[in-house]
Amino acid sequence: MLTNIEHIGIAVRNIAASNDLFTKLLNTAPYKAETVESEGVTTSFFRVNQTKLELLEATSPNSPIARFLEKKGEGIHHIAFEVDDILAEMERLKTEGFMLLNETPRPGADNKLVCFLHPKGTNGVLIELCQERNKPTSEPLE
Amino acid sequence: MLTNIEHIGIAVRNIAASNDLFTKLLNTAPYKAETVESEGVTTSFFRVNQTKLELLEATSPNSPIARFLEKKGEGIHHIAFEVDDILAEMERLKTEGFMLLNETPRPGADNKLVCFLHPKGTNGVLIELCQERNKPTSEPLE
Repeated sequence: MLTNIEHIGIAVRNIAASNDLFTKLLNTAPYKAETVESEGVTTSFFRVNQTKLELLEATSPNSPIARFLEKKGEGIHHIAFEVDDILAEMERLKTEGFMLLNETPRPGADNKLVCFLHPKGTNGVLIELCQERNKPTSEPLE
Repeated sequence: MLTNIEHIGIAVRNIAASNDLFTKLLNTAPYKAETVESEGVTTSFFRVNQTKLELLEATSPNSPIARFLEKKGEGIHHIAFEVDDILAEMERLKTEGFMLLNETPRPGADNKLVCFLHPKGTNGVLIELCQERNKPTSEPLE
């Protein structure tokens, strides 16, 4: 089950400037910043009730965020859904015909295991499944 | 204050097909459908915890959703934030330098008063403020 919209990811060119902008918009400062080298991103998080906005700046010209910015410019990059059991959910969605971009969950920001769905199968929306890393999964991870 | 992510709007070409797709994705059916003639859209809503996904199909070639689909294709169209007092929030954001796309709140789907912010001032993200229509506002609406 996709139990919650965990966060909305927004690609930005300059995270320091965007932190100021979203602080004004939301009237609250980011509560966390984190660089995820494996994904080539620096992130910051704003809490909005039970969900979050995640700003994403590329740390290298080859990161997916750099390619997104080049192709589409700044804007909403993905929606992340919280799941209780990422392996079970990946299996369910594969059976339903969705295309997974990751065969096994990978480490994401904010202590999560994540898997993306191909936007071609979801009306152009890049969807991330994410599970807290300390939760039990239905089988051992590779 | 922007108190909650009320919904995420997703532009689609065929809402019947997309209702099926998102029903599979979320493992739950849409709970509501509504046409908003003034906005040129047919909508359907899926609940995800305290927020919603709103699918949007254009009802005329001149509607903002038709223009979005033509320019960018299917995908995430906007993020809507719930506010307690839309007039007060519009005033606060104008003072902070944000560009409002509506001078006064207008009727949106789902019994809301809404106002959009120009995406040029928000890192390419189209942002909607929305307030339940039965809530009191800080001054009379025009």
